[in-house]
Amino acid sequence: MFGKGVMVSLWGALLWFVFPGRVWAAEPTPASNALAIDTIWTLLAAFLVFLMHAGFTMVESGFTQSKNTVNIIMKNLATIAIGVIVFFAVGFGIMFGPDVGGIIGTKGFWMENISDLDFGIPTLGFWLFQAVFAATSATIVSGAVAERFKFVAYCIFTVVMTAIIYPVVGHWVWGGGWLSRLGFIDFAGSTVVHSVGGWSALVGAYLVGARLGKYGKDGSVQVIPGHNIPLGALGVFILWFGWFGFNAGSTISGTSPEIVSIATTTLLAGAAGIVGVMLITTIKYSKPDPTLTLNGALAGLVGITAGTASVSPTGALIIGLAAGIIMVFAVEYFDRVAKIDDPVGAISVHGVCGAFGTLAVGLFATEGGLFYGGGISLLVVQLIGVIAVFAWSVFCSWIVFSIINAWVGLRVSPEEEMEGLDLGEHGLRAYGDFVFRSAIPGSSVQPATQEIRMAKPEIEVSR
Amino acid sequence: MFGKGVMVSLWGALLWFVFPGRVWAAEPTPASNALAIDTIWTLLAAFLVFLMHAGFTMVESGFTQSKNTVNIIMKNLATIAIGVIVFFAVGFGIMFGPDVGGIIGTKGFWMENISDLDFGIPTLGFWLFQAVFAATSATIVSGAVAERFKFVAYCIFTVVMTAIIYPVVGHWVWGGGWLSRLGFIDFAGSTVVHSVGGWSALVGAYLVGARLGKYGKDGSVQVIPGHNIPLGALGVFILWFGWFGFNAGSTISGTSPEIVSIATTTLLAGAAGIVGVMLITTIKYSKPDPTLTLNGALAGLVGITAGTASVSPTGALIIGLAAGIIMVFAVEYFDRVAKIDDPVGAISVHGVCGAFGTLAVGLFATEGGLFYGGGISLLVVQLIGVIAVFAWSVFCSWIVFSIINAWVGLRVSPEEEMEGLDLGEHGLRAYGDFVFRSAIPGSSVQPATQEIRMAKPEIEVSR
Amino acid sequence: MFGKGVMVSLWGALLWFVFPGRVWAAEPTPASNALAIDTIWTLLAAFLVFLMHAGFTMVESGFTQSKNTVNIIMKNLATIAIGVIVFFAVGFGIMFGPDVGGIIGTKGFWMENISDLDFGIPTLGFWLFQAVFAATSATIVSGAVAERFKFVAYCIFTVVMTAIIYPVVGHWVWGGGWLSRLGFIDFAGSTVVHSVGGWSALVGAYLVGARLGKYGKDGSVQVIPGHNIPLGALGVFILWFGWFGFNAGSTISGTSPEIVSIATTTLLAGAAGIVGVMLITTIKYSKPDPTLTLNGALAGLVGITAGTASVSPTGALIIGLAAGIIMVFAVEYFDRVAKIDDPVGAISVHGVCGAFGTLAVGLFATEGGLFYGGGISLLVVQLIGVIAVFAWSVFCSWIVFSIINAWVGLRVSPEEEMEGLDLGEHGLRAYGDFVFRSAIPGSSVQPATQEIRMAKPEIEVSR
Repeated sequence: MFGKGVMVSLWGALLWFVFPGRVWAAEPTPASNALAIDTIWTLLAAFLVFLMHAGFTMVESGFTQSKNTVNIIMKNLATIAIGVIVFFAVGFGIMFGPDVGGIIGTKGFWMENISDLDFGIPTLGFWLFQAVFAATSATIVSGAVAERFKFVAYCIFTVVMTAIIYPVVGHWVWGGGWLSRLGFIDFAGSTVVHSVGGWSALVGAYLVGARLGKYGKDGSVQVIPGHNIPLGALGVFILWFGWFGFNAGSTISGTSPEIVSIATTTLLAGAAGIVGVMLITTIKYSKPDPTLTLNGALAGLVGITAGTASVSPTGALIIGLAAGIIMVFAVEYFDRVAKIDDPVGAISVHGVCGAFGTLAVGLFATEGGLFYGGGISLLVVQLIGVIAVFAWSVFCSWIVFSIINAWVGLRVSPEEEMEGLDLGEHGLRAYGDFVFRSAIPGSSVQPATQEIRMAKPEIEVSR
Repeated sequence: MFGKGVMVSLWGALLWFVFPGRVWAAEPTPASNALAIDTIWTLLAAFLVFLMHAGFTMVESGFTQSKNTVNIIMKNLATIAIGVIVFFAVGFGIMFGPDVGGIIGTKGFWMENISDLDFGIPTLGFWLFQAVFAATSATIVSGAVAERFKFVAYCIFTVVMTAIIYPVVGHWVWGGGWLSRLGFIDFAGSTVVHSVGGWSALVGAYLVGARLGKYGKDGSVQVIPGHNIPLGALGVFILWFGWFGFNAGSTISGTSPEIVSIATTTLLAGAAGIVGVMLITTIKYSKPDPTLTLNGALAGLVGITAGTASVSPTGALIIGLAAGIIMVFAVEYFDRVAKIDDPVGAISVHGVCGAFGTLAVGLFATEGGLFYGGGISLLVVQLIGVIAVFAWSVFCSWIVFSIINAWVGLRVSPEEEMEGLDLGEHGLRAYGDFVFRSAIPGSSVQPATQEIRMAKPEIEVSR
Repeated sequence: MFGKGVMVSLWGALLWFVFPGRVWAAEPTPASNALAIDTIWTLLAAFLVFLMHAGFTMVESGFTQSKNTVNIIMKNLATIAIGVIVFFAVGFGIMFGPDVGGIIGTKGFWMENISDLDFGIPTLGFWLFQAVFAATSATIVSGAVAERFKFVAYCIFTVVMTAIIYPVVGHWVWGGGWLSRLGFIDFAGSTVVHSVGGWSALVGAYLVGARLGKYGKDGSVQVIPGHNIPLGALGVFILWFGWFGFNAGSTISGTSPEIVSIATTTLLAGAAGIVGVMLITTIKYSKPDPTLTLNGALAGLVGITAGTASVSPTGALIIGLAAGIIMVFAVEYFDRVAKIDDPVGAISVHGVCGAFGTLAVGLFATEGGLFYGGGISLLVVQLIGVIAVFAWSVFCSWIVFSIINAWVGLRVSPEEEMEGLDLGEHGLRAYGDFVFRSAIPGSSVQPATQEIRMAKPEIEVSR
């Protein structure tokens, strides 16, 4: 088994990160009250962001087919495990170490030799918050390539994502790199986290191809409904809950006067995202669409993330509303026009709305925004950042996915895909005792949408 | 489609709230350490209360039928979206603005012109906490009218609820209105939030009528079991978790010495609610009833909410215990005697136990309570408040529901109700690939309770 | 009905705890800023630990059969209700009251007469944090004895566990008792909470015997797969989230400089536990095992709990990795060699990894650990503690379970076990409307693991 060898090597290789042969101890820092407030705020926010991984797992599981649920869970577990360890050993140094020409950090691997750096709170606390962030960008990819991507291939990509692709962008914007020097504003990561994940997801979904049966030879587009909508809805609520930590924790300071307006814009933008989708889908389809509405909350949240500390509540409402509406059209574009199969809408939610939200800072920032009399200069800088990060993410992802494809392959076999990745990759069903229509020969998946539901049930019942 | 026009108008109308044409920016406030502690405490509590909306969604979904799950999710998403935006634009001003004769606030719409008001922490932080509260009262209604109430009708009601019905009561008690001047004590909202929601739920459930098949012509009462008890249980745990923020965050102060005893009474009352229901249902039915026990935790929590800062731990145990027991009898009364169909028991849990908890403050408050030598005056004030809020809630709800009924109708068609609101209202099944007994012709719902389960399974199996 | 009488007595007896006939009021404490920070930190951590009960409920439900789900929910509700009230009335005094010879506390029942004790923060805040801990040790037992243990028997055990078994160990280690005087280190409870629960679980699972069908007469071992893996996965994420409060909250201080490294080691050890299991199960089975990987996160977390404040990040990675690997072998040992049926792996995760983690402090503590030049003395003390707590837990559990067995019996009838405890014990199905393969006559449970799945589906389908 070639795949087994690679996978054992992968997980074994992580031991090199685990056992660096160093006897390293954390240096406790004496705390003033203000420092203590900043520290507990950042830690609590980090815990909330950690929980977002549960949210991603639920959203991705709920919105896909039941036969791939265990695979999604395993990918998300691998993401947090790999992400945290690789970011500890490599990523943090690249992201926050002193740099070379504003491009890439070069110190701080295994968190060593950084006692001279000041992050406002004890270094490990700052690391913790950044580590749970780092794993997020990779998780976004897992949603877009769900239901046909090899587990080992995903794990390898996650190593590169959290070691290099994400930390380099992070260095540009948050580590003192060239974009930050230009005045680029991405407070909590519309671009740094979400767009990087979204554009990598775009490349991954394009290269791995659509799921079997998604696109007919006649150009028809099949809707493959999610198997557990309440699971997905719970995931959205958990993500929103975690987002308060994601945005307001990015101050790395509980004494910052900004945290109040950040939390407020976060709440309002998510709410406005829902309103936007309810409105547009009722107009388009006569009914508010449930999965799009759930994604609408996320779209609003992704959209506000860049400007959460820079815009007014009114600005947040408009950004959230627009993000929701843009997301609906983006999902339709990728699904029906570009025919890039993204089961959970990750490219639209994180990539497109991340870019939109970043640009929106150039319009709505109360200091420097075009609509507030700040002229066009900030908007131009934001545009430069969006384009640069798009180029970097697509460039890196393309190379990495291509190498992985040549090495172990990106895609499972058609037989495994039909049967579900849960059995093929992990040997376990998610719901072993439940009866599924798709498991009944001669039957097909029970259509989830009203338009295509069948007239007659297919199970014969005794009298 | 008449419904579509109304719904597009509704969501479009919210744009008026979103685009007030104002260029409004949050005023950062310089922070002392004490102010910072108060602020982060209130924000974190608000995040916890926000998560309660996930809890409500799970409880309402799990305790009802699978064919209406998506509808419940959509109603809860609409609640948070509408609630937050409407409370921003209208509700907050009515609730906390300077008043006219102690009845209703008249300033602070869109959070403007309130720089002279002092809420202890930065105004937007106070708003955030109150906004997630406001949406809660409407959510309570959605549970009681589940499985037959039109989506658009519910959304319209939510606008009125968070704009007027709830904020007016809030003004009376927390905004300096007439009840607060009488000395009425409702620390965290047994009456303000829960009873307002519960009594409106009562009116809604009465006016919309029982679900098809709930009550036979012969007077028989059918049990319609919930489709996913672990989902409901998760919701209860999440609600309890959020309740710590709900109660202890209502200090709007992390430096308040009260937060410790508030958190303690909150934990104890929930636990005692469980004990009360376990005891009474074991006596009555020989077995502890699962859904009632889950509701018992909520009953205890609703009961303690008014007096959480005023009673001793022992008082909290007694109040929680009594609330659990009262809830069991209330559920039976509404279900079997009054024949008001409340699928999740919201009227009993939130309305009845909210009223009970408010009155219990008059008995158990260590300062002023009857049992602590305080005489009867506080109890009388509490009674006045309970009656006044009951009257206001029922009066307003009746008018609003009646107008909505005449306008778009409260209830879906019998065909849609039979098929489930998920397809009719939203075009999506919650669990598209799972096989359900109720979907098999000639079969009926697999009875969930032992008493009525059938002897023979109904699916024929090949050899 | 003998069982009913006992159960009514049990729940009724708790009234004695609820109504102690005392008029007890919490004493508000004036707060300095530092005290306020410590207090809100501890309270928030307690809320997180409270949520772990949701995590336990989900893990235990998801990893067992659907016919016992309601029973698991009820046991977890009973645990929190009983645990909190009994710990209030009895356990806290035994654990933290002034002692007799370092063995057992003797004051502080109903939290009275302890105004002279100083816990750093207001006493009720300290109690709250300890109370949610206490209930955890009992919950661990419920997982190991799931699917065949009587509800009333479990409730009686929980009373003794939270009144005596757990608090005595707690006194030894955290209440100033003999182990703490020896210098035993168990910062957040690898031994105090997890091993006590794990060893009691071992005794309970041994005494009640294996589930029907688990072990064949020919020595074969049947895999009984969990019914809802995403539910279990959500539980693991929630537990990990709560663990940040469990470990970092055990400082009882938000101004402590240790909280940062505690949170870091908690994150890293969980991640390393996943890596360890991914590696070892890929080697052994060619595929990473999903349920073991989920348990791997928990194993890493249990392992780090004792040394979370004493070891370096590198130490945490090694401990977590080793705990994951040890857990896999322990699960196989108990499942296939010792043939002690533990449906969720609680004995291995909590008992074995708890003991390992405690010993690991003797190796990896940066102050006093063998690997850091501290010699063998700390390791010896840790070993003494592990052995003493093992002996105490097994001794007490054996006696208590034996008494309960003679009194009401430990085990449900074979008929009830076949049908599921949900109907027998509580009269409600968890998923009343879903169709299950195991409920179809002539069919068997749909095998969840690839190795044993059948070639042909068993439901006949109409053409």
